[in-house]
Amino acid sequence: MIPVPKHTRSAVDARISDALKAVSARDEVTDIYFTACGGSFAHMLLNQYIVEREATVIVGHALNAAEFKARAPKRLGKNSVVIACSHSGTTPETVEAVQIARAAGALTISLTEDLGSPLDEASEFTVPYVHSAETMSPIHSAAVQVRLVFGILEAREGNAKGADLDQALGQVGDLVERIKQDHKERIARFAEAHKRAPLIYTMASGASYGVAYAFAICILQEMQWVDSAAIHAGEYFHGPFEITDFDVPFVQLIGSGPAREMDERALAFAQKYSNRMTVLDADELGVAALPGSVAEYITPLVFAPVLRTYAEKLGAARGHPMTVRRYMWQMEY
Amino acid sequence: MIPVPKHTRSAVDARISDALKAVSARDEVTDIYFTACGGSFAHMLLNQYIVEREATVIVGHALNAAEFKARAPKRLGKNSVVIACSHSGTTPETVEAVQIARAAGALTISLTEDLGSPLDEASEFTVPYVHSAETMSPIHSAAVQVRLVFGILEAREGNAKGADLDQALGQVGDLVERIKQDHKERIARFAEAHKRAPLIYTMASGASYGVAYAFAICILQEMQWVDSAAIHAGEYFHGPFEITDFDVPFVQLIGSGPAREMDERALAFAQKYSNRMTVLDADELGVAALPGSVAEYITPLVFAPVLRTYAEKLGAARGHPMTVRRYMWQMEY
Repeated sequence: MIPVPKHTRSAVDARISDALKAVSARDEVTDIYFTACGGSFAHMLLNQYIVEREATVIVGHALNAAEFKARAPKRLGKNSVVIACSHSGTTPETVEAVQIARAAGALTISLTEDLGSPLDEASEFTVPYVHSAETMSPIHSAAVQVRLVFGILEAREGNAKGADLDQALGQVGDLVERIKQDHKERIARFAEAHKRAPLIYTMASGASYGVAYAFAICILQEMQWVDSAAIHAGEYFHGPFEITDFDVPFVQLIGSGPAREMDERALAFAQKYSNRMTVLDADELGVAALPGSVAEYITPLVFAPVLRTYAEKLGAARGHPMTVRRYMWQMEY
Repeated sequence: MIPVPKHTRSAVDARISDALKAVSARDEVTDIYFTACGGSFAHMLLNQYIVEREATVIVGHALNAAEFKARAPKRLGKNSVVIACSHSGTTPETVEAVQIARAAGALTISLTEDLGSPLDEASEFTVPYVHSAETMSPIHSAAVQVRLVFGILEAREGNAKGADLDQALGQVGDLVERIKQDHKERIARFAEAHKRAPLIYTMASGASYGVAYAFAICILQEMQWVDSAAIHAGEYFHGPFEITDFDVPFVQLIGSGPAREMDERALAFAQKYSNRMTVLDADELGVAALPGSVAEYITPLVFAPVLRTYAEKLGAARGHPMTVRRYMWQMEY
């Protein structure tokens, strides 16, 4: 059964448009703070990456919401935009970060699935999204965030990649479905090969690092109680590679764009010494079909739902449903 | 035997002074990029943290050197200062990052123990430092970096914490020695209790997160072949905490400053469900003796050498010297 999406394309688009109008109306915008926790924070790393690659005036900062509060960035103020995200809209740290930001005069834009939630209440603008972890569309959270980022860069700096972005986001859903079909056997092999693994490392860099981070902390540690760490491919040779051995499993993402060279170097080494590499390669997945100007930024939006399909099968093979928790939902903390 | 330091205080101070004069002479400074790999990169996270907490004009960016190259930050140019570090001065990615930065017109300042190394050759300014992992002084790498950061903030923004910083760095060496004496028994217990542990997580946040990261990737993964991941205390409740159980070991740093609240919340939970918490608490270590305006920034400089002493004892108990490598120094990669 395909659930009816909670939010429609036109409703989401209208909210994005309202938020961007407010961004345009600001006298000055010098900083975007991206703040959230856990899986929602992981997406923010991509947003920060895009700003650093694309913007000359605006600076991007991605911070866990509790870290944002502690750090109390000195630049935060009326020239700042703060983009926050919480799926339920109830994450206390994220709500508090938005309250702090708004009190400091920042323009606050939040994403949540739940309009009416505390995060929605706290924020000047809220954009809802639809959630379905094994698919992707222009109104999924990660896509909405990238649209907001490019929308801000267009409004404030004349960035002209919006049309390419729209085209890419129009293609991405079908691309994901096609890959999941093509990978059916590989996914089954992955699940069988790793159903007794107590630890699985993930590795990536550049635009896709956040997906590897989310897979490590939200899928493996949280939903599967499998030990993990996200290794940055550029850091691999400066410490982590020493734990590589024939029986150490890695899930590695090989991105598109300029970070690919770094991914390939780490992969060449890792697959020489580990017999347990699972690789998702953007080139092999057909990401080249997306407009070249934005392909590297959309690659993580392809990796995420495909990896989730790998994870679901792993959970089934392990007899450990993705919804099991021992602490979350069980107690106050 | 105490080795004779390769570089003297006066030589290091003169180099810092030369670099800061060049920073002052620039028409404009808008960004500092902190770039390095592995253990040297870990220190850069503290520098970036300080800039975000203290600066209103200047923005700090900490990037692994290969990521820096791939990302090719659009703001990089003549208004940028790039601070790089490589202990040997031979790390190819770091040398290349400096070359890219210099070609873009940035002011390049590098740290290395080895004057005459490729990194020294590539950089406009080089500051040497002394290295001794179980001690701390004003001419250790981490201290030199913090001095450069506050020096730049003084020169460009009138930051007035330099005197407090000097005082703190004058105290920190003795403080570290005293803690190591006080912790002798705890260190021995830690080594015995963990000598069979195949995995040890580390946890921290704020100014001290980089120390936990370095301990995970350089000490445990690299030097001990023990699986590890650095968990951000603010992220702990949003995924990683689900792997907590009675027999899962954590080394946690409880910092000073505003991040402490986040550390304490994670600790309260972790020690309720794990019987294997090893905690270094800034308050208990006597960090309050340092000038309050800079104590949170100097806390990681206390944690790092003390933790290294824990690590050395662990290596001895495991019969795995800290100098053993299977890939590094053994082959090209």
